[in-house]
Amino acid sequence: MKLLIVNPNTSEAMTRTIDQAAHLYAGPGTEIVTLQPPRGPRSVEGYLDGVVAAEATLEVLRDRGAGFDACVIACFDDPGLYAAREALPIPVFGIAESAMLMACTLGHRFSILTSPARSKPGTLELVRRYGLEQRCASVRTVDLPILALDDDVAVTHTLFAAAGRRAIEDDDAEVLLLGCAGLAHLDKELERELGVPVLDGVACAVKMAEACHGYGLRTSKRLGFAPPTVKEYVGHHGEVAAVQPVP
Amino acid sequence: MKLLIVNPNTSEAMTRTIDQAAHLYAGPGTEIVTLQPPRGPRSVEGYLDGVVAAEATLEVLRDRGAGFDACVIACFDDPGLYAAREALPIPVFGIAESAMLMACTLGHRFSILTSPARSKPGTLELVRRYGLEQRCASVRTVDLPILALDDDVAVTHTLFAAAGRRAIEDDDAEVLLLGCAGLAHLDKELERELGVPVLDGVACAVKMAEACHGYGLRTSKRLGFAPPTVKEYVGHHGEVAAVQPVP
Amino acid sequence: MKLLIVNPNTSEAMTRTIDQAAHLYAGPGTEIVTLQPPRGPRSVEGYLDGVVAAEATLEVLRDRGAGFDACVIACFDDPGLYAAREALPIPVFGIAESAMLMACTLGHRFSILTSPARSKPGTLELVRRYGLEQRCASVRTVDLPILALDDDVAVTHTLFAAAGRRAIEDDDAEVLLLGCAGLAHLDKELERELGVPVLDGVACAVKMAEACHGYGLRTSKRLGFAPPTVKEYVGHHGEVAAVQPVP
Amino acid sequence: MKLLIVNPNTSEAMTRTIDQAAHLYAGPGTEIVTLQPPRGPRSVEGYLDGVVAAEATLEVLRDRGAGFDACVIACFDDPGLYAAREALPIPVFGIAESAMLMACTLGHRFSILTSPARSKPGTLELVRRYGLEQRCASVRTVDLPILALDDDVAVTHTLFAAAGRRAIEDDDAEVLLLGCAGLAHLDKELERELGVPVLDGVACAVKMAEACHGYGLRTSKRLGFAPPTVKEYVGHHGEVAAVQPVP
Amino acid sequence: MKLLIVNPNTSEAMTRTIDQAAHLYAGPGTEIVTLQPPRGPRSVEGYLDGVVAAEATLEVLRDRGAGFDACVIACFDDPGLYAAREALPIPVFGIAESAMLMACTLGHRFSILTSPARSKPGTLELVRRYGLEQRCASVRTVDLPILALDDDVAVTHTLFAAAGRRAIEDDDAEVLLLGCAGLAHLDKELERELGVPVLDGVACAVKMAEACHGYGLRTSKRLGFAPPTVKEYVGHHGEVAAVQPVP
Amino acid sequence: MKLLIVNPNTSEAMTRTIDQAAHLYAGPGTEIVTLQPPRGPRSVEGYLDGVVAAEATLEVLRDRGAGFDACVIACFDDPGLYAAREALPIPVFGIAESAMLMACTLGHRFSILTSPARSKPGTLELVRRYGLEQRCASVRTVDLPILALDDDVAVTHTLFAAAGRRAIEDDDAEVLLLGCAGLAHLDKELERELGVPVLDGVACAVKMAEACHGYGLRTSKRLGFAPPTVKEYVGHHGEVAAVQPVP
Repeated sequence: MKLLIVNPNTSEAMTRTIDQAAHLYAGPGTEIVTLQPPRGPRSVEGYLDGVVAAEATLEVLRDRGAGFDACVIACFDDPGLYAAREALPIPVFGIAESAMLMACTLGHRFSILTSPARSKPGTLELVRRYGLEQRCASVRTVDLPILALDDDVAVTHTLFAAAGRRAIEDDDAEVLLLGCAGLAHLDKELERELGVPVLDGVACAVKMAEACHGYGLRTSKRLGFAPPTVKEYVGHHGEVAAVQPVP
Repeated sequence: MKLLIVNPNTSEAMTRTIDQAAHLYAGPGTEIVTLQPPRGPRSVEGYLDGVVAAEATLEVLRDRGAGFDACVIACFDDPGLYAAREALPIPVFGIAESAMLMACTLGHRFSILTSPARSKPGTLELVRRYGLEQRCASVRTVDLPILALDDDVAVTHTLFAAAGRRAIEDDDAEVLLLGCAGLAHLDKELERELGVPVLDGVACAVKMAEACHGYGLRTSKRLGFAPPTVKEYVGHHGEVAAVQPVP
Repeated sequence: MKLLIVNPNTSEAMTRTIDQAAHLYAGPGTEIVTLQPPRGPRSVEGYLDGVVAAEATLEVLRDRGAGFDACVIACFDDPGLYAAREALPIPVFGIAESAMLMACTLGHRFSILTSPARSKPGTLELVRRYGLEQRCASVRTVDLPILALDDDVAVTHTLFAAAGRRAIEDDDAEVLLLGCAGLAHLDKELERELGVPVLDGVACAVKMAEACHGYGLRTSKRLGFAPPTVKEYVGHHGEVAAVQPVP
Repeated sequence: MKLLIVNPNTSEAMTRTIDQAAHLYAGPGTEIVTLQPPRGPRSVEGYLDGVVAAEATLEVLRDRGAGFDACVIACFDDPGLYAAREALPIPVFGIAESAMLMACTLGHRFSILTSPARSKPGTLELVRRYGLEQRCASVRTVDLPILALDDDVAVTHTLFAAAGRRAIEDDDAEVLLLGCAGLAHLDKELERELGVPVLDGVACAVKMAEACHGYGLRTSKRLGFAPPTVKEYVGHHGEVAAVQPVP
Repeated sequence: MKLLIVNPNTSEAMTRTIDQAAHLYAGPGTEIVTLQPPRGPRSVEGYLDGVVAAEATLEVLRDRGAGFDACVIACFDDPGLYAAREALPIPVFGIAESAMLMACTLGHRFSILTSPARSKPGTLELVRRYGLEQRCASVRTVDLPILALDDDVAVTHTLFAAAGRRAIEDDDAEVLLLGCAGLAHLDKELERELGVPVLDGVACAVKMAEACHGYGLRTSKRLGFAPPTVKEYVGHHGEVAAVQPVP
Repeated sequence: MKLLIVNPNTSEAMTRTIDQAAHLYAGPGTEIVTLQPPRGPRSVEGYLDGVVAAEATLEVLRDRGAGFDACVIACFDDPGLYAAREALPIPVFGIAESAMLMACTLGHRFSILTSPARSKPGTLELVRRYGLEQRCASVRTVDLPILALDDDVAVTHTLFAAAGRRAIEDDDAEVLLLGCAGLAHLDKELERELGVPVLDGVACAVKMAEACHGYGLRTSKRLGFAPPTVKEYVGHHGEVAAVQPVP
């Protein structure tokens, strides 16, 4: 299958991390292209970033999505996920949604480890959006800016390991999710250290995309994700298009 | 108080309807300016429209928001509401949220009447986002495109009255909400006809804005709506800004 | 508008505090009369107090409510609120309900600070009654009797500030509610000290009453709050009335 | 055991019905006294009736409760139940709560059959108060005034049988509860007719009271039902008592 | 009434403890027979034990259940409870379900004290199965194997008392449940020590069985607990029976 | 990967259907062995069947599970799923759980189509067990015995198509799940007919097993699914084993 992965932010380092994680676990028949939008925030750490990244991601899907069998939005806020499901004929996977769903087959409850602290309410909203609040033990945050996660890898490792340990011991988490695409490389080393499954959403979304593709499943186009209603869109320079074009 | 109302779509007719509804119930000390973005969809009827309208609305708030005491986002999807709360120092009100909260003081459960049919799952998601599912009797839809609501006013009235009657009789709704800013003018005539309160969100948001202003309340800037983290944004033409500017 | 505020207990000091808080934030066109019942407990701190205060409050509304546009029940247990909505033709506001609803526009989740400790389960029941459990971060109590809150103002301030700080830091509260009408004066000083909005329910209820009045909204009389069924009531001295009279 | 049953309304016919139902299923060692308050509404059909009946019931318990091992409040609104648990040293049972709890051992979900139509939202609130919304299939109402239920017994039977049949067929109810103490006599005849257990709350509360008494269980006096805080109460004639006296 | 109690595990000491607890609180007209299956685990401490114990318990009910009026499954996992309700014409009570339901009449929220630590997620699942999550303050575990609970009675007492105290102080529990049939003897001594009701499920189930019997209630045979569909069962030695026989 | 699929009932026709469905969508590197237990019911249609099938399934896993990388329990009741997760070192997938989780990536809400009518409450319990009640639009049943589903294939098709159409039109289902392994062959033909994704759980579980295997995920052995506590088991002939052996 041909899989398009979009990193919704404009950090090239993050795009590379995502691409590596995706290739590491992709099946033999999966071709992966990982892109990032030409515009938008360097990282997604709040609602404003999320709104800009969502539209920028949809623009990438519109401009570059032709010819793919499925796509993945590779940010743990799943920005634009439902809009992409509506707009595209191919199935779309979010890394947060995929990680949460796979975690449900591995243990009673999962905790999400993310940063910075401010993202906790939004992450809890995402859990609620997917109706999974009964399965979520906690969201635990490390208060580092996303773009600082790579500054001192040992510090990042130590802080997330500590957050994971508290999730296990205090919140009864049986599975841990890494709440940022930029943390992908931590999964297996934290898993060995903490003794519970630690899931990176990029790997999860790639596997879910392959699983759905293998069974021939596509987004339901009935009701909520029906193709967009045809209407005029006014563009950035005032030009009027008959419809917002999507692939 | 000075109140900025943004119609998130690019329909000038809708902007006028919103402006009229807002002026009709505004208090004597309230100055209202109603704007629409220079770009985006003519109406908001799904997730894709919502994503584009959200960023366009935030651009209006960034470019034109200086000097206002509060603002209202006047579309029943509340596009960009949480991002605006994060980005702006002044309080921000959504017409869906305001209508749902005021309805809670008037009856046990409310129903939302909206169009088209496809918007039902998204409207239910909004109810769940606000944690009000216990108070929502139902979402009932009329299957007309938003931009057709003005084509035959009598038909629109008849269809929404029928939907409201079913919400009252079959779903035990005690209060009805008009799920689109373009329906504002229907509130009092449906109220007389159906015998229960019928709320237009634009009026509700204006009154909630005045209420919060009168008591000196502003958005909490602790945790989830803290001002955006400073980071680089890449613009539409590749230019790099140190931060996404907001008023 | 003419607004009747009833303090459900028989503490004159509390009635004065309520009246002052109400006047402080009332709009220019709002005339306020604040009353207390001639009988009942000096403070409301449990279910028994609540039952007696509810009937006493309804007696005040029946005897003194004529000519008002709306009324407020000014105790954070909202005693008799639903009965008053049923019995009266004018809209009725509870200070707990109003504070919770306004808090929903200011942050993701609110905490309620109240006293004494025993009131915690009942306060949580009220949150559940209004269907707002998803929006309530916690109820934190200070274990002082209500009537002792005025004994040493500095101690009261210190204890509630400490409870608020724990709600913010441990429970992720973004907004705080003062869970007793007698604490009204603490709102703005705690707000400055703690850095999050701190809401007094009396002010909130006055503003909600004005907001509904300004938009012409009244209690739905369909189904649950329909006027009381006509039936005989036996009075305190055995006299039989054809109906429980209300204004 | 000595069991005090209080009919919260002032209908002597209802008090007799309750007394008969209670005696019919009471164990051999149970002595029952059934009382009604000297004041209050002839029936309880809404929030206002409920407030008055609650205080009147508590007055009966205060004046007549000495020497009993437990008491039952015999109205399906459970008026004053939590206040009585707080005020009395002996355990207190509500007929709605008892019926709902016993129904949970007999089937997956129960429906409540009650009258009049207006009581539906309040009955659903009671289900939610007890945290049993997952176990309640529906509340189905017959739109007769409570005091008319005895007017034509055949009509009452027919209407409640029809409501029960719809609850079974349309709502998947496996157990039915009679939502009014005045319907007690219908239990076994509807059970034979409809083929599912039909529970009268008076019988259920008597059996729950005996069950708790037999195991030596009493209301927890920790936290929410701790004895009332000592404080002044002002009486109906302005007299000040040091405390609201209870048995 | 004739009551069959089945201890689902194969520990004779546990069977004796259960039998004693049952006799201690049984009413004068209740004849009790307590049995254990001839096969299965010595204690039930996880899902695998639960599956084996469930089938073994159903075999006891099938082979020995004739002539009884009701039966009790005396393990706090309630193994096989719903299957027994389906298979048997007589009512069936689980000690966990009975204890949770009776606790609901005694306080706002209960905590369950159990062992070992691993049983916590399964116990929370049981609470959710019964739809009682709103009434459960917490599940607190002591990390001793079930079969070690009798090794040092003083240690067991101390550990459970400590767990109970934390449930009361940290979780706001008003009632405590002993989450294992083997702890039955601790109920009244912990109750005296901790000052809140402490419920043993065996006693609760006996009293619930008597209560339902006294009112003539049986399991609803409509829908979910209808008698098993007739079909072939292949036995342990390959023999084919027309139907799985039950009493 | 080597995948063991267990059909929990003793119908060879069903085992063949499952095996075919599994092979149809398995990836190129997946070797599948499909087994059924030597004992137990011919079909699983209620709680009693489920208990017997669960133990029989665990016996198959114990006796035949060595050497596999993962296993699937192929009955829409997921009998013994949690016990198998506890008992086995390899990951275990249930067809109901897998289908529900994959459905969550395809639409807002799914409906489950199953038979016979009596299985509805149990299926809803399973949805609740997995915490997915917000995502489940409805369970719709066709009242045919499981073993009669093959008698007249055209009738079965017609009845399930009708149930699916009602789920789509009346319940707003966007995705349909076939609630029985024996219906596997209906998926793609119903999908074409009804215009929404129709998922067979066997295919879903195979793809989820491959997805987890590809990413190296295994069941969390922390807390709830920790390996069984070592203890004596008494066998069918009274023999005492030191531990219930599992692969």
